[in-house]
Amino acid sequence: MKESILQSLYPDMVKWRRHLHQHPELSFHEFETSKMIGDLLESWGLEVRRGVAGTGVTAKLTGALPGRNVALRADIDALPIADEKACEYASTVPGVMHACGHDAHTAQLLAVARYYSLNRDKTEGTRLFLFQPAEETLPGGAVSMVSEGVLEGIDAIFGVHLWSPLPYGVVATRPGPIMACPDEFEVEIVGRGGHAGLPHESADALVTGAALVTALQTIVSRSVNPLDAAVLSVGQLHAGTANNVIAERCRLSGTVRSFTPETRSLVRRRLEEVVAHVCRMHGTEYRFRYFEGYPPVVNDEAEAARVLAVAASALPDCRTVVSERIMAGEDFSYYLKEKPGCFIFVGAGAEDGSSAPHHHPRFDVDERAMLVAARLLTAVADDAASTVSGA
Amino acid sequence: MKESILQSLYPDMVKWRRHLHQHPELSFHEFETSKMIGDLLESWGLEVRRGVAGTGVTAKLTGALPGRNVALRADIDALPIADEKACEYASTVPGVMHACGHDAHTAQLLAVARYYSLNRDKTEGTRLFLFQPAEETLPGGAVSMVSEGVLEGIDAIFGVHLWSPLPYGVVATRPGPIMACPDEFEVEIVGRGGHAGLPHESADALVTGAALVTALQTIVSRSVNPLDAAVLSVGQLHAGTANNVIAERCRLSGTVRSFTPETRSLVRRRLEEVVAHVCRMHGTEYRFRYFEGYPPVVNDEAEAARVLAVAASALPDCRTVVSERIMAGEDFSYYLKEKPGCFIFVGAGAEDGSSAPHHHPRFDVDERAMLVAARLLTAVADDAASTVSGA
Amino acid sequence: MKESILQSLYPDMVKWRRHLHQHPELSFHEFETSKMIGDLLESWGLEVRRGVAGTGVTAKLTGALPGRNVALRADIDALPIADEKACEYASTVPGVMHACGHDAHTAQLLAVARYYSLNRDKTEGTRLFLFQPAEETLPGGAVSMVSEGVLEGIDAIFGVHLWSPLPYGVVATRPGPIMACPDEFEVEIVGRGGHAGLPHESADALVTGAALVTALQTIVSRSVNPLDAAVLSVGQLHAGTANNVIAERCRLSGTVRSFTPETRSLVRRRLEEVVAHVCRMHGTEYRFRYFEGYPPVVNDEAEAARVLAVAASALPDCRTVVSERIMAGEDFSYYLKEKPGCFIFVGAGAEDGSSAPHHHPRFDVDERAMLVAARLLTAVADDAASTVSGA
Amino acid sequence: MKESILQSLYPDMVKWRRHLHQHPELSFHEFETSKMIGDLLESWGLEVRRGVAGTGVTAKLTGALPGRNVALRADIDALPIADEKACEYASTVPGVMHACGHDAHTAQLLAVARYYSLNRDKTEGTRLFLFQPAEETLPGGAVSMVSEGVLEGIDAIFGVHLWSPLPYGVVATRPGPIMACPDEFEVEIVGRGGHAGLPHESADALVTGAALVTALQTIVSRSVNPLDAAVLSVGQLHAGTANNVIAERCRLSGTVRSFTPETRSLVRRRLEEVVAHVCRMHGTEYRFRYFEGYPPVVNDEAEAARVLAVAASALPDCRTVVSERIMAGEDFSYYLKEKPGCFIFVGAGAEDGSSAPHHHPRFDVDERAMLVAARLLTAVADDAASTVSGA
Repeated sequence: MKESILQSLYPDMVKWRRHLHQHPELSFHEFETSKMIGDLLESWGLEVRRGVAGTGVTAKLTGALPGRNVALRADIDALPIADEKACEYASTVPGVMHACGHDAHTAQLLAVARYYSLNRDKTEGTRLFLFQPAEETLPGGAVSMVSEGVLEGIDAIFGVHLWSPLPYGVVATRPGPIMACPDEFEVEIVGRGGHAGLPHESADALVTGAALVTALQTIVSRSVNPLDAAVLSVGQLHAGTANNVIAERCRLSGTVRSFTPETRSLVRRRLEEVVAHVCRMHGTEYRFRYFEGYPPVVNDEAEAARVLAVAASALPDCRTVVSERIMAGEDFSYYLKEKPGCFIFVGAGAEDGSSAPHHHPRFDVDERAMLVAARLLTAVADDAASTVSGA
Repeated sequence: MKESILQSLYPDMVKWRRHLHQHPELSFHEFETSKMIGDLLESWGLEVRRGVAGTGVTAKLTGALPGRNVALRADIDALPIADEKACEYASTVPGVMHACGHDAHTAQLLAVARYYSLNRDKTEGTRLFLFQPAEETLPGGAVSMVSEGVLEGIDAIFGVHLWSPLPYGVVATRPGPIMACPDEFEVEIVGRGGHAGLPHESADALVTGAALVTALQTIVSRSVNPLDAAVLSVGQLHAGTANNVIAERCRLSGTVRSFTPETRSLVRRRLEEVVAHVCRMHGTEYRFRYFEGYPPVVNDEAEAARVLAVAASALPDCRTVVSERIMAGEDFSYYLKEKPGCFIFVGAGAEDGSSAPHHHPRFDVDERAMLVAARLLTAVADDAASTVSGA
Repeated sequence: MKESILQSLYPDMVKWRRHLHQHPELSFHEFETSKMIGDLLESWGLEVRRGVAGTGVTAKLTGALPGRNVALRADIDALPIADEKACEYASTVPGVMHACGHDAHTAQLLAVARYYSLNRDKTEGTRLFLFQPAEETLPGGAVSMVSEGVLEGIDAIFGVHLWSPLPYGVVATRPGPIMACPDEFEVEIVGRGGHAGLPHESADALVTGAALVTALQTIVSRSVNPLDAAVLSVGQLHAGTANNVIAERCRLSGTVRSFTPETRSLVRRRLEEVVAHVCRMHGTEYRFRYFEGYPPVVNDEAEAARVLAVAASALPDCRTVVSERIMAGEDFSYYLKEKPGCFIFVGAGAEDGSSAPHHHPRFDVDERAMLVAARLLTAVADDAASTVSGA
Repeated sequence: MKESILQSLYPDMVKWRRHLHQHPELSFHEFETSKMIGDLLESWGLEVRRGVAGTGVTAKLTGALPGRNVALRADIDALPIADEKACEYASTVPGVMHACGHDAHTAQLLAVARYYSLNRDKTEGTRLFLFQPAEETLPGGAVSMVSEGVLEGIDAIFGVHLWSPLPYGVVATRPGPIMACPDEFEVEIVGRGGHAGLPHESADALVTGAALVTALQTIVSRSVNPLDAAVLSVGQLHAGTANNVIAERCRLSGTVRSFTPETRSLVRRRLEEVVAHVCRMHGTEYRFRYFEGYPPVVNDEAEAARVLAVAASALPDCRTVVSERIMAGEDFSYYLKEKPGCFIFVGAGAEDGSSAPHHHPRFDVDERAMLVAARLLTAVADDAASTVSGA
C-alpha cells in the first residue's frame, strides 16, 4: 500500500528534482527553491514555516494516531560548479550546479511529505520535514535551524544522502561515527630572506616548511590511536620567488579529518605544537590559523541499529550494509548532537563504480534512488514513531 | 707622474660612467655602449676590433719598449632592474639599470687605455683592453671572446670588480678560488593527486618535496669536505592547489655554489641521487634539470701574490687585504682557465656598510673607486709586463 | 540446570588452574600438562587423542542428539617469565610462569568437557575439545594442529581469552578482524666509518638510520588507509661506538601490526622500499629481514553476531560489548582461516583497571572469569550445534 | 755548522725517543719521563724547573748575545692504547703506548736544548724549553703551564707536531686557524615507554632522537657560514631494548669541530636550541651536556709567515707548504692565546700515504723527521730571537 503510493509519486519526484537541477541556487540564496518547497507543502495542508535559518522551510504533519515525533531532513543548496552534463535537465545557471544531489534530497523528501499528507489517518505521532539551506558552506544551515528551535519536542531525526560511490540498490549506515570532522588550517612561516649563497645570514622559511611537513607525519603515525582514524594532509605549500634567493615566507595549508572530539582536539593541539617548535627551531616566526569544520556525524547506536533492521526488512529488493566511515563532513552532525537519530547513505551510482564523484562537473544520480530513499524514510519514520529504539 | 695623469682623467671617468649609467643596455644588446667605447679608443689611436663576441670591443696598444703582453678586462652590460635612485644620472631606460657597476668598470678601463695611449713611449710590451658584453646572462660574453681568440699571445690577464660591500679604499683578492660556480637546478615531482582524506589512494608530491628538501641538507652537512665550501639552497617550492586535495605536482628549484670542479660535480651527483631515491621512495616520478653556471673564478697563485704586493706598494693610501671567497659567480673564470691572471675587488661602498648591495634598485658606487681601480690596473699591468710572476 | 552443573564444577576449575599455575611448562614442552589433561578427559569417557602437534591433546564427545560439530579451543603453554606473585599457588618452576592465563583457559575447557560428559544425552552434534600447545612461540601450535587434521568435519570453532584489561563480568568480541598480525623486522645498515671531523670520507650509518626512522612515519601517515589500522614502531636503534668516530653500522628493529592481509603486505612492501631508497640515497648498504607473526584473527561475521547475541541472553549478569580491535596477535587465526568461528575476550581484571597486564611478572586472573567462560562456551557451542549462523 | 751539530745529535734523539717509546706514561703520570728530561737538561747546565703543571719540566737558557725570548714546546704523555708493533723498541707497558709521537717531540726538543747548551755564546736572547704533560687528556697540561707563569717575558712560542699523514720531508703550517676546537656533547631523551602497538599512549624517544639527528644537519647546511668550516657529527645513538616496546630513552652523543669562537658558540647555541625544540615537539624531556675541548689553535699571522719563510730558506732539502686546516684539536692553543707564535706540522709518514694514522696501535714515525724538526725549531727560534715578525 505504502509502496504503491510512493511508487505513484515517483514521476513527481523526477519532475521536481529535474526542475531544481535546472534552477540551482547557492547556499543561503535558495529563494526560488524555498518558495517551491513551501508552496507545495502548503498546498498539501501541512503546517509550514518559511524563512527558517534564512532560506529554510519546515513543515509539520500531525498524524491521526498517537505516537512519537520524528523529523526528516533534506538539504537544498547547490554548488558553485559549472554543469558539464549534456542532458535536457542540465543547469541553466552558469557556474552553479546541483553537484551533490541536494535536488534529489529535496524531491524525495517532498514525496515523503506528500505521502504522509495522503495518509494522515494511519500515521502515528508527528512528522517534521526539514528543508535545510546551506549545507555546503560553513557555518552551514543546520546550526541555525537547531538554534531556531526546530528540534523542540522531536524524538528522533533521520536524513539520507544519495551516494554515487555506492551502486543503486544499496543502503548503508553504521552506529557511531559515520562522517568526519573536516577542519582546515593555514600556517604562514616568516623567516628572513637573503642571498642563496649566504644561508647563515638568513632564516630559511622553505627549509622550515619542509621540516614542518615531515614532522607533521608523526601526528598520525605516533600521536593518534591507530584504532581510531585521522588524516592530516598538507594540500598546499608555496615558498620562494627566485632560485638564488632564500625564501622569506612559506605558506602552507591543509585539512584535518577526524571522527571524535578527542582525536580532533588532539590533532589540533599537536599540529599547533609541531608548528611552534619547528618554526622556533629554525629561527622563524609563524602565524597559525585553524578553521573548525562541521562536527563529526555520529549516529545514535540504537537508531542506527533500527535503520539497519528496518531497511533489511522493508527493502528486500535492496542490499543493506554496515557502512565504512566516510572522510567527508556534513552538518547533519548538529542535529545528532541534540537528538537521537541516524544519517543514511542510499546508493545512487553505477554498479561498476563508473559514476562521477560528488562535486564533479558531470555528477548525476540514478533517479530511482529517490524512490529507495523515500521508501526507507517512511519505513524508518513509522518504526521510530511507534517504538522507542532499543526497547 | 702616472698618478697625476690618471688623476687628471678622473673627470672623464665620471662623465663616461654617468653617461653609461643614464643609458644602460642589456646583455648582448650593448650597441650604443660599444659604439662609444670603440669610437673613443679609435680616437686615441688604438688598434680597435669591434663586434667581438657580438657586441664586445677590444683594443690593442703596443708599447715602445719590449715586454710581455697583458690583457685588462671590463664588462659593459646592464641589468633588467628599474633604477630607484633619485639623482641626475639615474637610468633613463625604464626597467634597465647599471646595478652592478659595469658602467664604472667600462669608464675606468677607458681611462686606463687613454693613459697608455698617452704613455706609449714608456710602456713595456703590449696592453689588450677587453670590453666584454653580457657578463650578467648565461652563457656570458667571456666564453665567446675566448673562443674568438682574444687571448692569443697574452701572458697575463687582470680584471677589477668594484665592490660595494667593501668600503672605498680597500683592495682585495686572494690566490686560488675567489668566486663561486653558481649552478642552478629544477626538480619537478609528479605524484598522483586525490582526496585529502584518502592519502592511501594518492602519491603525495608535496610530502615528497618536503622530504627531499630535508634530505638535501645532508649533502653539505655530510658529503662535502667541511674544509671546502659549498652551498645548496632550494629557493622555491610550489605544490598543490587546494587545501583538501593531495598535491599531484611539486616544483622546486634552487642554486648550488662551489669553488672546485670536484665539489661541483660531487654536489651535482649527490643532488641527483637524493632526488631519485626520495621520489622513488614515495612512489612519485620526477624530472631533474641541472644548469651549469660559470666555472669558479680561480686566481693564479703567483699573479694573485703579484697583485697583493703591487697594490700594497703602489697604493699606500689604500688597504690591501686577502679576500674571503665570494659566493657569487663571474665569467672572468673563462679567461683564467686559459691564462694566468687575477680578479680583484676594489672597495666602492660606504665605510659603515650602509651601501645598497649589488643588483639592488638603489645600487650605486663611490666613483672615486674608479680612480683606485685605474691606478691599480696600470701598476699591476706594468709589473706583469716587465716581470714573470714568481720569478 | 546447565548453570548449576557448571557452578558445581567451579571448585575443580580453581583446583586444576592452580595446579597448572604451580607447574607451568614452556611451549612444546607441556608434557605433564598434557598428561593431566589427557588423563582427566579419558577418565570422563571422551575419545582422546594425545601428541597432537607435539604436546597437544584433543578429545571428542558425540552427543546423543543430531546436530553440528563444534570445536572449542584452549591453549596450554606458559612463558619464560619469573613469577613475582606472593601467593600459595605461585609458580614452583624458576623463570617459568603462566603469565597469560593459559592455565585458566585449560581449566575452564576441562570443566566444559566434564559438563558435556555428564550431559551427553541432551547434547546435539559433537564437541571437539582442542588443548593446543605453544601459543606463545612462533610458529605456534595451531598451525600444526590444523595440518594434522583436527578441524576435519568441524562446522564452527570458538575460543576464549581471559583478558585482564577488561573487568570481570564483561564479554567482548567483534565481527571481522579482532586481533592483529604482529610481524617483526630488522634492518642492518652498513656504511663506512671514519673520523668524525671528516664526514665526506665516510658513509654515515647513523644519519642514514635516523633518516630511515623519519621516513618510515609516512607509511602509516600516507600509505595506509586511514580507516584501516596499522602500526609500525621501531623499537630499537643502535649505532656507533665513539663520539668522535662516524658510525659504520646502524641496527634497528621493530614491529608491524595490521589486521588485514592487504595492509600487512602493503606495509611490508613499503617498509622494504623505504629502507632500500634511504640507504642507497646515503651511500650505505643494508640487510633487511622481515619475520611474519601469526595472521590476524578474523572473526566470522555471523558467528561473532551469534556470540554477541548468545552472550547477551545467556549471561544476563554480564555485560556484552562489541570489542575494540586488539593490537596483539594470536594463533587462533589459523583455525579461523579454515572454519567459521569466533574468538572471545572474557574480562578477568579488576573493575578499576589496576590489574597487572598480560605477560607481567605479577599477572593473575579473577578466577570467577573461568566460570563465565565455561557458561559462555557451552551456550555458544549448543547454539552453534543446533543452528547454522545467519540462518 | 748548526746543521752538523744537530746531525751529530741525531743518534741521541733516536736513543732517547726509543727509550721513551719503550716506557710510555699516561697523562699527568709522566714521572720517569720527567725525571729523565730534567736530569738531562740539568746535566747540560740549563736552569731547570720541575713539577710544572704537575709533571712538566721547563728549562731556560740565556744566550750570550742580546735578543728576544723564545719558547719551544714539546708534549710528553702517551696514550691508553696497546702497542701492536713488532719492533725492538715497542712499548713495554701493557695497554700504554706513544701512539701520537710525543716521544719523538720530547727527543727532538732535548736535542735542540742540547744544541743551545753547546752554542750559548752564539745565541741571541733566551730560549725556554717547555716539556708539557698531558696533551691527550682534558683539561690538558698547557692551561696549567700558562697559569703557572711559564710564558712570562716570552716574546714568541713555537711547537712542532710530527705528522704521519704528511710524508717525511714536508713542513706545513698556515696563518690563522690551523687546528680545530674539538668539543663533545651528549643528549639524553626521556620519553614514555609502552606497547609498540599503542604509540598514542607513549612518547617515542627513538623517533624523537631520529628527528633530532635529521634536524641537526641544518646547522652546518644553513646556520654556519659556508666559507667557515664546522662539523657536527653524532657518533652514537642508542635507543630501545625490545622490538615490541616503544623506547623510553634515547641517548646520543657526538662531536663539534670548529675553528673560531664565533662559529663554536653559534653551533653550540643552535645545537641546544634544536635539541630543546625537537624534544618538546615530541613531548619528551631531555638532558643536554656540552663539553668544551681545547680552543682552536690559531697561528699568529706574522709568526706563521716567518715560519714559512725560514723553513723555505733553512730547509732547502724539504718542501714547505701552506697547510690545510686540521679537524683535530691541540692544547698548544692556550699558549697562542697568550703570545704570538706558530704551531707547525713536520711530515713523518711514508711517501705513499701508507703510514698508520695517529692513535693507531701500529703508529710509528719516520725518525729522521726529528732531525727536520730540530733544524726547523733552531732556525725559527734564532730568527724570532733576532727579529720582530713583520718588521
